[in-house]
Amino acid sequence: MLTSDQNVLLTQTGPETPMGRLFRRYWFPALLAEELPEADCPPVRVQLLGEKLIAFRDTSGRLGLLDEFCAHRTASLYFGRNEENGLRCAYHGWKYDVEGNLTDMPSEPEDSKFRCRIKQKSYPLVERGGVLWAYMGPADKMPELPELEWALLGDGQRFISKRLQETNYLQAMEGGIDSSHVSFAHRFNLDDDPMHSGTAGNEYIKADTRPKFEVAESDGGLLIGARRNANEEEFYWRITQWIMPFYTIIPPFGTHNPMGGHAWVPIDDTTCWAWSWNYHPTRDLREDELQQMRNGDGIHAKYIPGTYRTLANKDNDYLMDRQAQKQKKTFSGIEGIAAQDFSLQESMGEIADRTKERLGTSDAAIILARRRLLAALDSMEDDVLPGLDTADQRVRSTSVLLPKDVPFHEGAQQAIQVVPGTDFVSI
Amino acid sequence: MLTSDQNVLLTQTGPETPMGRLFRRYWFPALLAEELPEADCPPVRVQLLGEKLIAFRDTSGRLGLLDEFCAHRTASLYFGRNEENGLRCAYHGWKYDVEGNLTDMPSEPEDSKFRCRIKQKSYPLVERGGVLWAYMGPADKMPELPELEWALLGDGQRFISKRLQETNYLQAMEGGIDSSHVSFAHRFNLDDDPMHSGTAGNEYIKADTRPKFEVAESDGGLLIGARRNANEEEFYWRITQWIMPFYTIIPPFGTHNPMGGHAWVPIDDTTCWAWSWNYHPTRDLREDELQQMRNGDGIHAKYIPGTYRTLANKDNDYLMDRQAQKQKKTFSGIEGIAAQDFSLQESMGEIADRTKERLGTSDAAIILARRRLLAALDSMEDDVLPGLDTADQRVRSTSVLLPKDVPFHEGAQQAIQVVPGTDFVSI
Amino acid sequence: MLTSDQNVLLTQTGPETPMGRLFRRYWFPALLAEELPEADCPPVRVQLLGEKLIAFRDTSGRLGLLDEFCAHRTASLYFGRNEENGLRCAYHGWKYDVEGNLTDMPSEPEDSKFRCRIKQKSYPLVERGGVLWAYMGPADKMPELPELEWALLGDGQRFISKRLQETNYLQAMEGGIDSSHVSFAHRFNLDDDPMHSGTAGNEYIKADTRPKFEVAESDGGLLIGARRNANEEEFYWRITQWIMPFYTIIPPFGTHNPMGGHAWVPIDDTTCWAWSWNYHPTRDLREDELQQMRNGDGIHAKYIPGTYRTLANKDNDYLMDRQAQKQKKTFSGIEGIAAQDFSLQESMGEIADRTKERLGTSDAAIILARRRLLAALDSMEDDVLPGLDTADQRVRSTSVLLPKDVPFHEGAQQAIQVVPGTDFVSI
Repeated sequence: MLTSDQNVLLTQTGPETPMGRLFRRYWFPALLAEELPEADCPPVRVQLLGEKLIAFRDTSGRLGLLDEFCAHRTASLYFGRNEENGLRCAYHGWKYDVEGNLTDMPSEPEDSKFRCRIKQKSYPLVERGGVLWAYMGPADKMPELPELEWALLGDGQRFISKRLQETNYLQAMEGGIDSSHVSFAHRFNLDDDPMHSGTAGNEYIKADTRPKFEVAESDGGLLIGARRNANEEEFYWRITQWIMPFYTIIPPFGTHNPMGGHAWVPIDDTTCWAWSWNYHPTRDLREDELQQMRNGDGIHAKYIPGTYRTLANKDNDYLMDRQAQKQKKTFSGIEGIAAQDFSLQESMGEIADRTKERLGTSDAAIILARRRLLAALDSMEDDVLPGLDTADQRVRSTSVLLPKDVPFHEGAQQAIQVVPGTDFVSI
Repeated sequence: MLTSDQNVLLTQTGPETPMGRLFRRYWFPALLAEELPEADCPPVRVQLLGEKLIAFRDTSGRLGLLDEFCAHRTASLYFGRNEENGLRCAYHGWKYDVEGNLTDMPSEPEDSKFRCRIKQKSYPLVERGGVLWAYMGPADKMPELPELEWALLGDGQRFISKRLQETNYLQAMEGGIDSSHVSFAHRFNLDDDPMHSGTAGNEYIKADTRPKFEVAESDGGLLIGARRNANEEEFYWRITQWIMPFYTIIPPFGTHNPMGGHAWVPIDDTTCWAWSWNYHPTRDLREDELQQMRNGDGIHAKYIPGTYRTLANKDNDYLMDRQAQKQKKTFSGIEGIAAQDFSLQESMGEIADRTKERLGTSDAAIILARRRLLAALDSMEDDVLPGLDTADQRVRSTSVLLPKDVPFHEGAQQAIQVVPGTDFVSI
Repeated sequence: MLTSDQNVLLTQTGPETPMGRLFRRYWFPALLAEELPEADCPPVRVQLLGEKLIAFRDTSGRLGLLDEFCAHRTASLYFGRNEENGLRCAYHGWKYDVEGNLTDMPSEPEDSKFRCRIKQKSYPLVERGGVLWAYMGPADKMPELPELEWALLGDGQRFISKRLQETNYLQAMEGGIDSSHVSFAHRFNLDDDPMHSGTAGNEYIKADTRPKFEVAESDGGLLIGARRNANEEEFYWRITQWIMPFYTIIPPFGTHNPMGGHAWVPIDDTTCWAWSWNYHPTRDLREDELQQMRNGDGIHAKYIPGTYRTLANKDNDYLMDRQAQKQKKTFSGIEGIAAQDFSLQESMGEIADRTKERLGTSDAAIILARRRLLAALDSMEDDVLPGLDTADQRVRSTSVLLPKDVPFHEGAQQAIQVVPGTDFVSI
């Protein structure tokens, strides 16, 4: 439960807002690399943290992320020509390079000096791990490039998708660190998921339906432990990572299955990009795994062709099937893990009214994540915020058996560090 | 003509508004009984007086009307599971009974007392006369169940429909007590309607096209008399009842035809449910009558299949046919009595601007109904408001011949009382 | 670049706004004559300068332009019956003549005097040149009827179209006086246009790609000269007229081709009617020319059938073809001269944010037009505003060769006057 002011503070991320300034201190996913597949391909409109931008890849392959609207008369550069190392506005031919420098101004006299006084707002955009990352903060505060584990793996070792979610980022992200909903929203579908089946973990989960939650601060965010009874001496722990400002990593079932994770990137205050990835640290994903991911299984989704909007969406009540709900094929009547989540999150309204909620012990992770985000606002001038250091990002989630008297964040210390070239420690 | 302040006062019915508090003192139609046809059927979203609610029928057949959004994290209970005498939220499994008690909280430890501190907002919902009635006011002010005549008749004696109207309730209700528009909006269609044809009344109506209107206060609202010349000694009176807060009863043509009536229930301030019913006090409706009603004739409407939105609506200009208008098949080019009304009412805008209207003597009923609603705001703390006493509801409309010197509300006194088991007095 | 206040001042044209009051001093196009083709035809809804109106042609052929909403209960007169020299509201039968007088009030007693106190707001509407012109200003300030050249020609000598543009009028009009965008937005399509091909002008335009712009005040607005090198002694000038408050005339290529022009009429503050006309002063348009215009070539557009909304519009990204853009078939990927313009103008947003623009020397006409509009606000009480006198309207645009030392507005003085019965002076 938040005050109305706190809810505003946490959910608004435009350029002039406190949380907007905090988020601008981090690199974050802006586009799939495949959206700008080659030199001089069509520019792409993208809105991030409330700013309308245009992304393009120039003749030399360099990436640009500019204010969408031409400095001259504010026409959209979406209609521009991407040619000869610059994006040329279709209205009067002003041409910008990837840094927003005005390299040609053919509507003015050749000897005009006016050109030199114009600079289009631009942000760094870099490709890493199949994703184009943006940094929209002050130049002198720019951190190192992101080192989330999957971003440094070979192309074959990961699969990445993004989808439009029609809510504020916060209630989407809260879903990503909310271990307790799995037993309900997804209850009848855990065994459907090939990434979940056939592991010892499933047996513990079925046997103990009321896990205890413990949350510990990590350098970059939170470690969220869900504890279940395993045997006389041990607990079964599933440990989820939350990394500032909006990354989540889901523990795998067994070492042979890929890990999953998300980023929840604000488009504006009422929509966000839900990024989802699966990856494996020591092997390429198999064709059958890739096929399932492309098909929208697991944490991915089915799309309206040619878009990043999901086939099941609020305009069609998420293709709700009351018969399937009644027959316990799905818990909520909605098919698909992702749609089961975002249907409920969108049902809260575009921005959940957190003055009305009633949080319990199972919501500890959500409570603490909010607290940490709010706390970070006070230390915004620091050079090192949680999650900025790449060490904070080189972490894993895990599921492990630990002796009952061992605190989970100590017992799992090894398993939750990325050691390149080693497999996950998970059961 | 109202002041801007008066218009706001009359048209806003949310929880914190004066008119909203007044309306919450009454039972009113929330759903058709057929929308919750059986135990454990799918829950239904319904918005009433600006509040988003969820209605369900539990395993034992009990009816519940709850705040739509779960007390825990504000997800919609629409996605909930209706099972084992409660509605279980699909997000974290919290389960509510029909009174909003939290009967299961599986996401928290078994010994948690937290559950006992939670109560989902809930309202009484009862079935009567094929309709589910809601009461959204203070528990200690709850009146007796409604006794409008049709609500106590056998199932075969009535037909009920509801449709979405895309305006504030007030301009819809004003249409229901506006006898004078019948001669215009419906002029070319009175003879089409089987419920109107073949009675002496029609002859008087055709012969005297400028009725005089008289309005008298009744205990529950207003008696609206439209007077036409009949013969040397008598006037022909058509008497319409308005019962607080938003019920109207239309006089029948002849004793053998069913009576009609409406309720105009605010969904929010810019839409309302237009409820329409036909009924006969002493016999079942005939199959040919029911067929016409199902077909959208008379006061009913044709629907977009699977919805309560009408086929003719503002997005398609109500299927306006200028040819039919020119040929005097319809007065406004719109087909259907109901659509002829709501097309014009919706054309006034979502909330009619009553500061711009110019009312005449034929608008007396509208003027007085507004006045009575405003006056009721001042006596809101009273235990007996007009229309609350079931005696106020046990009334009929009628059409009668009366000697010229007899005031209509005295002359019709017998005819406008409900006497169970007796037929209408009407010509 | 404007201040935020100036931008508001220039773009808002509702009844109570300064620019709204200025525009109401002029006659302007309201409807195509074909929209009210005959006596007693269906009335037509039209919104102008933020006011919702209804236009009709009565039994005697007279034109009326009334407030859309009936004075009685504010129902739309769109549903009214156009019959026996008046428009009768479909709700209660009130009937208005073309001047807004209430000629029948059948819902009130025959001897009622109430009728005489009611007057529906009405504006003069006159037919001239295939267009219905409205005047929405004070009666005592009404100017003479418009005498733009095409408006006085025979029916066969002109072609007129209108389309919905989903922006404020100002950025649309600025496009009409912006000679410099032609070299970019339309670059690859100048030769496609049969009205442009085969003239000496095209050769000068191709040879000199950086014209110099000079702007001079005319009595009615602005003369905008674009100067290109022609030969040792002469410049090639293309001279565009802007006439207050929102008319533009485009110079023809050669004397044998029709002239073009536009009016940019506010519907409300976020949409406008873009009127386009072609005409020839001494001959009928040829069938092949008319065919091209009907087909949406030149300055006209293709429509969604039965509407004035263009087929290429913002909902379909203007049917953008990236392949055609890459292959230099179109500069922006959009097909059609008109769509090339309005796609860019709409991309600026509904009301362009002129606090963010950076104007250069090629934007001189835009800068001066704004200045002249703002200046006119200060002299609004004058009886003669620029463009009001019909002499201000009897002007032409032209393209001519002039000796290098002759100022363009002096050298072209003859060519830019309308002399009825004479051909354009243009090369």
